Amino acid sequence: MLKSIEESPLYQIANPKSIAFFGASNNITAMGTNLLLSLKAAGFEGSVFPVHPREERVQGYKAYRSVLDLPEVPDLSVIVLPTRIVNAALEECGKKGIPKTVIVSGGFKELGGEGIALERELIAIARRYNMRVLGPNCLGVANPHGRVNTTFLPWEGEPGFIGLASQSGSLVTQMFDYLAAMGTGFSTAFSVGNEADIDLVDAMEYLALCPHTRVIALYIEGVRRGRAFVEAVRSIVPRKPVAALYVGGSETGKQAGLSHTGALAGPDELYDGMFKQSGIIRARSVTELFDFCWALGALPLPEGPRVLIQTHSGGPGAAAADACGRAGLQLPSLSEETVERLRPFLPHTGSVANPVDLTFTKNHDAFFSSIPEILVQEKRADSLLVYLLMPTPIVKRVLEQMGLPPQDVANQTMKLIEEQCRTFSSAVATSRKPVVGYTFRSLNDPFIQGVASRGIPVFPGPVRAARAIGALIQYRAFRRKSLRSSEQIEVSKHTRRSTE
Amino acid sequence: MLKSIEESPLYQIANPKSIAFFGASNNITAMGTNLLLSLKAAGFEGSVFPVHPREERVQGYKAYRSVLDLPEVPDLSVIVLPTRIVNAALEECGKKGIPKTVIVSGGFKELGGEGIALERELIAIARRYNMRVLGPNCLGVANPHGRVNTTFLPWEGEPGFIGLASQSGSLVTQMFDYLAAMGTGFSTAFSVGNEADIDLVDAMEYLALCPHTRVIALYIEGVRRGRAFVEAVRSIVPRKPVAALYVGGSETGKQAGLSHTGALAGPDELYDGMFKQSGIIRARSVTELFDFCWALGALPLPEGPRVLIQTHSGGPGAAAADACGRAGLQLPSLSEETVERLRPFLPHTGSVANPVDLTFTKNHDAFFSSIPEILVQEKRADSLLVYLLMPTPIVKRVLEQMGLPPQDVANQTMKLIEEQCRTFSSAVATSRKPVVGYTFRSLNDPFIQGVASRGIPVFPGPVRAARAIGALIQYRAFRRKSLRSSEQIEVSKHTRRSTE
Repeated sequence: MLKSIEESPLYQIANPKSIAFFGASNNITAMGTNLLLSLKAAGFEGSVFPVHPREERVQGYKAYRSVLDLPEVPDLSVIVLPTRIVNAALEECGKKGIPKTVIVSGGFKELGGEGIALERELIAIARRYNMRVLGPNCLGVANPHGRVNTTFLPWEGEPGFIGLASQSGSLVTQMFDYLAAMGTGFSTAFSVGNEADIDLVDAMEYLALCPHTRVIALYIEGVRRGRAFVEAVRSIVPRKPVAALYVGGSETGKQAGLSHTGALAGPDELYDGMFKQSGIIRARSVTELFDFCWALGALPLPEGPRVLIQTHSGGPGAAAADACGRAGLQLPSLSEETVERLRPFLPHTGSVANPVDLTFTKNHDAFFSSIPEILVQEKRADSLLVYLLMPTPIVKRVLEQMGLPPQDVANQTMKLIEEQCRTFSSAVATSRKPVVGYTFRSLNDPFIQGVASRGIPVFPGPVRAARAIGALIQYRAFRRKSLRSSEQIEVSKHTRRSTE
Repeated sequence: MLKSIEESPLYQIANPKSIAFFGASNNITAMGTNLLLSLKAAGFEGSVFPVHPREERVQGYKAYRSVLDLPEVPDLSVIVLPTRIVNAALEECGKKGIPKTVIVSGGFKELGGEGIALERELIAIARRYNMRVLGPNCLGVANPHGRVNTTFLPWEGEPGFIGLASQSGSLVTQMFDYLAAMGTGFSTAFSVGNEADIDLVDAMEYLALCPHTRVIALYIEGVRRGRAFVEAVRSIVPRKPVAALYVGGSETGKQAGLSHTGALAGPDELYDGMFKQSGIIRARSVTELFDFCWALGALPLPEGPRVLIQTHSGGPGAAAADACGRAGLQLPSLSEETVERLRPFLPHTGSVANPVDLTFTKNHDAFFSSIPEILVQEKRADSLLVYLLMPTPIVKRVLEQMGLPPQDVANQTMKLIEEQCRTFSSAVATSRKPVVGYTFRSLNDPFIQGVASRGIPVFPGPVRAARAIGALIQYRAFRRKSLRSSEQIEVSKHTRRSTE
């Protein structure tokens, strides 16, 4: 393991002070141009030196004919050139003394044949000059906290807490707005491509030490260094959760991974065992991978599997109850005390079973204040799952009926929604239990956005919510187990010493 | 089975010419007021007669002290009164001769105890006056084609093709905007509540004959008339697909259903068997229920399980390949002929395996035109699954770089996106194979909206897409089987006749 993050071969890649850029031009159809524009749009504060055979300026930056002409030695070079000239450019970077390179260009090992030889040559050049390389066939890095983004799409949203190490560049660059809708984003995300040099394990080790990273996500088509991988995960799990999607376990996924990054996939059971033994929470889809990360990064861990469901709608309540049962969660009945405390807020049609179903009431405000406040205090439960719904059309209708002038309705609607978000999040803020929402509204719905932006994950549908709670419980078990075994190691060390 | 839709007890409920409304007022906190406002917002064109003890006018309509005072006999009454006075109101409706009633009020069988007696009395009153009742403890009906909506939320979006029979009112009223994001909506949706009289089977039989309904969705907590249910489904499946979510199969779901609508759930395996035997496609979540309906209602049926995946991003491609494999689909390799035809459009980094991966190319337009046009013609495949991504920020960036004046960028971006949607949908329109998209963008993304609104389902993530294609294949098998067995019945009839 690394002693400090600065030791990581990825440190200068994620936090460069200056970058030489090959393959960007003033032509927007070139891939390199798009990557440079992403870097610029991120507000990168260091120096950028485009290397271009003809242009005087590229995207507003002074350009250089050769990397050897640069006025300083940059921390990093980014190469987005046609395959056949990549190695020559890398050699020049070596001569200049640039310590790190991101090679975006594809056409190497993943194509087989000549590509394999080209990649071998690339590695030899890097070794010769003591350079560390990310890629080829990757998109580099997005570190929104550091204003770095070498990927295809411009950053959207705020910097977040999910650290990603990915054998797919698309799952870095194409998830920016996806995570923004969850009110989070990447802390830092690495696209490792063909892993000719730096690999998934290096990326994990960097993220383990990254102060912005609360949870590590892995997208895996095939692990190259199995043993190092398991060891890295084991050392991380006591401090940070690790969730992974492995797509190489089906015959169809294996074939696709092979032609994508040349990864050699193993049988599903093998990976399943490796994940369980090392303490990785396995996701079954991209959606689930980021669901799990959302919950794991945003929420405290529950003490156990007992969930309270709060709803005002029977069907969504029953669907959540079913989803919880199928996800291995338990629905305890309420204590006498809680039932007593709820009584003033529930109409006669309401139910104090679990799901707690408010049904229709004229005192709807309690749904977002007193009721969740009481429910998070229930000692029989470890977490709270709340059905969330406050459709803008309904709020507007209420305000119109209350006689608000038409020109004020839109504005007041947003204010009221904002207020309910605040009320709800402070009602549950005192608790150390995880509180999770579920909804069938879009994550872009103003109320859902408001709740999510306050750190309460809201999942589209109860199945995703229940499985995310399941991931929290699974992580708690993994962490306890790994803390126990490291204690045992400590104990055995002491024992050995005292008998010496 | 019904001979015509007009024979259905639900016909006048879904298509009333006039409605007596109990429980609406000028007070917006009352539930009845909200339901009446939904009806009004739907643009209901018939007569509305609010019945109110004091008000002269309710929500702009002339109000009546008693239903007996109405100037005509309405087709339908809607009752949203406190539980204890519901039966008295129903009796008055009977005296007036109103043939159909929706009872929204809860507090009956679902509460147990006295509620059971009240519901029994309710049924007796309905029988005495030869009235048919939907409910109690329901939200009635949404028929956007007929401008009828007695539910809590105002209709959002366009009328669509999904017919829903639901033991949850929320899953009617709270899904309007959800389906709108899919570019579809309900044809007609019934909330059947406690099913004191009209039940799920009646609703299915109505929807089977409804000309706007292309697919029937069921939300089930427990089926009351098992045999009639199976017979109804069997008679429908040759003409229309039926998909169902059953939440009563887990212990937790069973308990929740019991306190919701008083439904008596049965073991999961029992329902699973009943679904398979009758030809129902079983969904495992609310999300999946409407995913399946989207695909079943929008797409032609595939000839078999062979899928082509088209992508420009390796990770999303590999994730789709994995998802297809796990959903029981097959990924055939391309024919020589197709490979030849694709060649001019693929860069050297691209892959003509399946997934067909364009990777990065300067000729990106082909992704939405020539390539899908070639792929839908591949004889080795039965359907096409396309990764869809056209983020607005990228289109803007391209236009800015092309020197477009800043004030025109937003406008031109939308035009360009619109154009690509049109190109894509006409490229695949000639085919009789299902074409399905998947994306990690929001369904509200302009490009995704544009594609979906042209009748091409776009699912959030490849797992949902692959499972939806699986539902199409399952329906094809169910339909063939049921057509075969009805042919056999025909044949045996003939045989019998000829031997007589």
